[in-house]
Amino acid sequence: MSSFGKLFRVHTYGESHCKSVGCIVDGVPPDSPLPRRTFRSSSPAGGLRSEFDTVRVQSGTEHGVTLGTPIGMVVQNKDQRPHDYTETDLYPRPSHADYTYLAKYGVKASSGGGRASARETIGRVAAGAIAEKYLKEAYGVEIVAFVGSVGPVALPFTQEEDEVLGKEYLDLVKNVTREEVDKEITRCPHPETSKKMEQTIRDAKARNDSLGGTVTCVIRNCPLGLGEPCFDKLEAVLAHAMLSIPSTKGFEVGSGFRGTTFPGSKHNDPFVADPENGDNRLRTTTNWSGGIQGGITNGEDIYFRVAFKPPATISQEQQTATYDGKAGTLATRGRHDPCVVPRAVPIVETMAAIVIMDQLLQQNARSAAAALLPPVTSLPPTMVFPGQRK
Amino acid sequence: MSSFGKLFRVHTYGESHCKSVGCIVDGVPPDSPLPRRTFRSSSPAGGLRSEFDTVRVQSGTEHGVTLGTPIGMVVQNKDQRPHDYTETDLYPRPSHADYTYLAKYGVKASSGGGRASARETIGRVAAGAIAEKYLKEAYGVEIVAFVGSVGPVALPFTQEEDEVLGKEYLDLVKNVTREEVDKEITRCPHPETSKKMEQTIRDAKARNDSLGGTVTCVIRNCPLGLGEPCFDKLEAVLAHAMLSIPSTKGFEVGSGFRGTTFPGSKHNDPFVADPENGDNRLRTTTNWSGGIQGGITNGEDIYFRVAFKPPATISQEQQTATYDGKAGTLATRGRHDPCVVPRAVPIVETMAAIVIMDQLLQQNARSAAAALLPPVTSLPPTMVFPGQRK
Amino acid sequence: MSSFGKLFRVHTYGESHCKSVGCIVDGVPPDSPLPRRTFRSSSPAGGLRSEFDTVRVQSGTEHGVTLGTPIGMVVQNKDQRPHDYTETDLYPRPSHADYTYLAKYGVKASSGGGRASARETIGRVAAGAIAEKYLKEAYGVEIVAFVGSVGPVALPFTQEEDEVLGKEYLDLVKNVTREEVDKEITRCPHPETSKKMEQTIRDAKARNDSLGGTVTCVIRNCPLGLGEPCFDKLEAVLAHAMLSIPSTKGFEVGSGFRGTTFPGSKHNDPFVADPENGDNRLRTTTNWSGGIQGGITNGEDIYFRVAFKPPATISQEQQTATYDGKAGTLATRGRHDPCVVPRAVPIVETMAAIVIMDQLLQQNARSAAAALLPPVTSLPPTMVFPGQRK
Amino acid sequence: MSSFGKLFRVHTYGESHCKSVGCIVDGVPPDSPLPRRTFRSSSPAGGLRSEFDTVRVQSGTEHGVTLGTPIGMVVQNKDQRPHDYTETDLYPRPSHADYTYLAKYGVKASSGGGRASARETIGRVAAGAIAEKYLKEAYGVEIVAFVGSVGPVALPFTQEEDEVLGKEYLDLVKNVTREEVDKEITRCPHPETSKKMEQTIRDAKARNDSLGGTVTCVIRNCPLGLGEPCFDKLEAVLAHAMLSIPSTKGFEVGSGFRGTTFPGSKHNDPFVADPENGDNRLRTTTNWSGGIQGGITNGEDIYFRVAFKPPATISQEQQTATYDGKAGTLATRGRHDPCVVPRAVPIVETMAAIVIMDQLLQQNARSAAAALLPPVTSLPPTMVFPGQRK
Repeated sequence: MSSFGKLFRVHTYGESHCKSVGCIVDGVPPDSPLPRRTFRSSSPAGGLRSEFDTVRVQSGTEHGVTLGTPIGMVVQNKDQRPHDYTETDLYPRPSHADYTYLAKYGVKASSGGGRASARETIGRVAAGAIAEKYLKEAYGVEIVAFVGSVGPVALPFTQEEDEVLGKEYLDLVKNVTREEVDKEITRCPHPETSKKMEQTIRDAKARNDSLGGTVTCVIRNCPLGLGEPCFDKLEAVLAHAMLSIPSTKGFEVGSGFRGTTFPGSKHNDPFVADPENGDNRLRTTTNWSGGIQGGITNGEDIYFRVAFKPPATISQEQQTATYDGKAGTLATRGRHDPCVVPRAVPIVETMAAIVIMDQLLQQNARSAAAALLPPVTSLPPTMVFPGQRK
Repeated sequence: MSSFGKLFRVHTYGESHCKSVGCIVDGVPPDSPLPRRTFRSSSPAGGLRSEFDTVRVQSGTEHGVTLGTPIGMVVQNKDQRPHDYTETDLYPRPSHADYTYLAKYGVKASSGGGRASARETIGRVAAGAIAEKYLKEAYGVEIVAFVGSVGPVALPFTQEEDEVLGKEYLDLVKNVTREEVDKEITRCPHPETSKKMEQTIRDAKARNDSLGGTVTCVIRNCPLGLGEPCFDKLEAVLAHAMLSIPSTKGFEVGSGFRGTTFPGSKHNDPFVADPENGDNRLRTTTNWSGGIQGGITNGEDIYFRVAFKPPATISQEQQTATYDGKAGTLATRGRHDPCVVPRAVPIVETMAAIVIMDQLLQQNARSAAAALLPPVTSLPPTMVFPGQRK
Repeated sequence: MSSFGKLFRVHTYGESHCKSVGCIVDGVPPDSPLPRRTFRSSSPAGGLRSEFDTVRVQSGTEHGVTLGTPIGMVVQNKDQRPHDYTETDLYPRPSHADYTYLAKYGVKASSGGGRASARETIGRVAAGAIAEKYLKEAYGVEIVAFVGSVGPVALPFTQEEDEVLGKEYLDLVKNVTREEVDKEITRCPHPETSKKMEQTIRDAKARNDSLGGTVTCVIRNCPLGLGEPCFDKLEAVLAHAMLSIPSTKGFEVGSGFRGTTFPGSKHNDPFVADPENGDNRLRTTTNWSGGIQGGITNGEDIYFRVAFKPPATISQEQQTATYDGKAGTLATRGRHDPCVVPRAVPIVETMAAIVIMDQLLQQNARSAAAALLPPVTSLPPTMVFPGQRK
Repeated sequence: MSSFGKLFRVHTYGESHCKSVGCIVDGVPPDSPLPRRTFRSSSPAGGLRSEFDTVRVQSGTEHGVTLGTPIGMVVQNKDQRPHDYTETDLYPRPSHADYTYLAKYGVKASSGGGRASARETIGRVAAGAIAEKYLKEAYGVEIVAFVGSVGPVALPFTQEEDEVLGKEYLDLVKNVTREEVDKEITRCPHPETSKKMEQTIRDAKARNDSLGGTVTCVIRNCPLGLGEPCFDKLEAVLAHAMLSIPSTKGFEVGSGFRGTTFPGSKHNDPFVADPENGDNRLRTTTNWSGGIQGGITNGEDIYFRVAFKPPATISQEQQTATYDGKAGTLATRGRHDPCVVPRAVPIVETMAAIVIMDQLLQQNARSAAAALLPPVTSLPPTMVFPGQRK
């Protein structure tokens, strides 16, 4: 399906060589300002291409104010001709979507991989910018993603054997800003590592090869109570969102895979009162849960990591087969990004914003309904929420 | 939401101390036999409790044949009384769902964590059994999951630095059967490791502690062309399904996180003709993609790994706080599973079956519609699917 | 699909001769009391059968308070055996669902019409009772339906040629109560007409024939602003809900079909200030719109009419054909309701309640989100809602 | 929501004075030709304005062939400026959507009624053209709608008291073609009546008044078995679709409201073998059911009627109130259509096509799945579908 979300809902269209790509965003709160500098481009990143796309808003706003009606957005494609039939079309690119799109639809776009292109994500980023702006203004939500590794080059943080996650990494997650991230061409906010990554990317390019990597994302100041049991636990919807980004192979939240090696006694996050906090909310002293317990946010930072495989399109010669099953050698021509991970950072952020926005609207619907009835008073005090117990 | 799937759709209800748990399954193909020995229980597993639940089918079948109408299923709860108000109710269990359910709903069930209980998954397993049986009979699909690690004890397979994944692991993924898995109490199909895991679980239990672990799942003989771009890529829906299982923290498919450290030239899966295969389908010589390319199945084995954190409920004393924010010590009484990973195996399988079944119905709708029109003949041969090009 | 609604969502299961019928209700506001005298039965009505069903709540409540989690409900079927194969099974009943269910599913339930039975609506009525109670308590919403005609016997109200709708009818719509409706065995709140209807039903029964009729429903005190443009206009969703009730053939809202013969100058509803109304809301002096304009409620009474065809199952001999296409005569044995219209009254009310509840939650999600941002002040005063302009 | 359909899914955006209106169509079968003369305009009809809109296809096709991916379509708006603030903005138009949009969203578009404009339906018509073409080519489905009445001028067909519906009307429904409909400026395929309607419209225009009317639509050659019990019965989804069209107030299928006055013995449709028909399908000798029984198509013609109220915007002076509640007089300036019913004809057809297409894909998913298993042979012969019993 070309749609994501339930109440804040994004529909996208478009592939690489059609007229335009774009989206319709449903469920935008009315009477709120649109993001000004329209959208943080997903492009000017660590790779080697720079594209600047203009998003043209078609509907749903007047005088700079959202109307609550669907917002249509269009981004022109530069290369609109379907390709002519070339020799390269004889080969499905290994590990790309050429073969599977053909198998699925019985017919293929001249670009081969149909909508399996980063270009499709432009519509998402435009939609996510609206969600982000709302979340920031209404709740002070901050969403920051950064590159944690490129190929074999990772953040050099140490981690003791008995630490679920290392202190340096947790500090970065806690404090890193978008400004710090965008200062580095690789979007890795550790200048020394960023330099190494840059060099690694240049080397890969020189070898006509490609590199994957990982992106970490943190969501701060997220309201409590988001996430819909049982099937739409917040981590489940986040995982869905992240693995819908092209080239992703993995997702882990909080302590993730490493956390599975620790016993409960070390992994549990103890509760503690928060004296600065007027509403009696509890906090936790550690946050291996990654801000989500039982599928529902507990108010702590939500952080997660996403794995990106190396891009499939490389200019090296590859031994493979034609669509007809004849063995042969393919060397894809043209410019290709050796590493898309830096460019993926705003896409990760945007999908996170869309998820949180959608879950927020769902929880709002419930809590606004519950607020209209007087609380049932017959229950013991621990069975109603502290913040509501006046 | 309590629903999962689009055409094969499962709705569940129930928490720990209510009358029953159950589900409604929509979209079951009509005129097919129900699973006989009704359902492989999710229970008789490596932990220490054994529960046997009887699933009572309410509707949607007659004379042992499905009618195509919704199948209602009910499983009685044994402990149906809401708990009395006890001292333990003063404390939200650390890293459990007690606090977040209360924050979300403003009121909490006596069991604390509402539907964040493995008991909710019984309805899923019943639904998944129907999907599995259909997939097996119609396509020969095999779904096998197994335990790969419990706490620090993992399969002892070696992995060379230049190998994306080790040969022993890949062989296991390729060949392991449910029988081999169920022979071991830990559901780790490597007897020696299983013994170690068992001992580790006993030790944890003796310490009143708990352990997490990982489950690997493989789906064999899955038809080509499943997965709906862009937002419902197969890996995205699988990740959603897996992270909707209680206690999960991570998901990776194919080469996963480790694959991000390899260059494209090593990570790409070359195509090759399959001489035994009459329909001109291509195969790949490696399968780092995990059977999914561009979000769509390519016919190779789909395999993925799921991370389970250690259970939050432990009997050790934990320093934490009451709902009212007073510091104190909690030691949860009663029996608790020290490790749920072996019991999670059938739940992983069931969610995999539900996902594949649902995607299959969606793809069937498309391909059945396309099959009614003559193929457009003006296109170059490589733009239509080999299997359809006669 | 066996589901209705988006946020307040009802899933049903069950056919005539299975173990039970039931439903799962998702999206019930937490911390609200359940309807006490559990559910107004859909049964004890103008026909001749009386069934009393006990709804057993399975989950989603404790101590009489809703938890916000799905509410499972089960109603045992009395006749649980699939029928044996009898001579009657040779004929699809004319105008019943026997033939179409068989065509759709390729296999048929022994009851023939599968889920096309009023019995399926029991789950809906149970779900609707929860919605009704909430709407009543939170907003004072009143929903009253009544029988307006049975076969050729209709309310005897006069209507001038130049009147869109007659005054007596409008007065009834405005003022009728459930008590007045339920006083009459036919649920037509006009005692003289009710007597005639009763006699007509007895005559039909004596002739082994059946009768249709119409039901009018009014929703009072519905909040402004409900209904989701463009596809989920309130009247569209109401029509969907009403025509999902078995045996319905038509729906009209406000002035309906008759309104199409009047010019705009007579049909438009002029606005007027409401001096008693503190929040500056406008009212209309007439209400041919039926409380909905542009698909959105304007706060006036919502009223609509639903057409029910005569039941298909009659004991008269009918010339028809067997499944095999052999001409023959069918006279269905057993008890059959000659007229289901009185029994349809609570089902109409229940579907109305479910629709309003669902739309309310959707609008709550939006307005709660909008309320968190300061209103944009740069707009001319008429471009923001009077009730919000302080 | 701005979306309609489940598998064939249409998302629209746009209001009167924004840059463009448009849609994304999801679920188009791949490898099928696009409608050539792109789209039958919804415009050149009985009213007095003529607009010709160019639909620009953005994506989802190449070389004139659909790719199976979403088709984006855009239609430029001619009057793109938001209006300046004028005196007319002081008054909500009576019976228009100005007031309710403001109440719903808290802010209003300069056009007042937001998306409650016929302009929004352009996207639907573009989407429906794709569905229609497919249905025509794959199944020979014919969808024809026509105007049955304009204000008080209706088709002059006689109807005997004991006839459910008159013979002339039924003949028209059975045989009328689009060519016959489009020959008349009013789209009423009865030349004499059409002339009267035209004159009536001119008179209304001269009086600065407006007129409603009714549209009848027939769907021929629709496959058996479409419609999803219980909530998505075909008539329910059709009613939803029709009442989502602006200005509609009613829907009736088959015998409709009039049918409620007849007894079952006259209203039931007897079955009969169809000797010309090789697949053993049964036909019915009458068709008061309107081609749908138990919510599922039986292969007979589906026909229904839709009520359109007179347009709210008229140039006569109307006594009403300002947004601020001050009594006053409004005479809307500018050109207004005195009657939209002729222009509604293609919109009714388009929504019918979208519904059938979507239901077809849903049924295809089911029957394609069922076809892969051998039929269960233990059942009595009447319990499996004749057409499948070989």
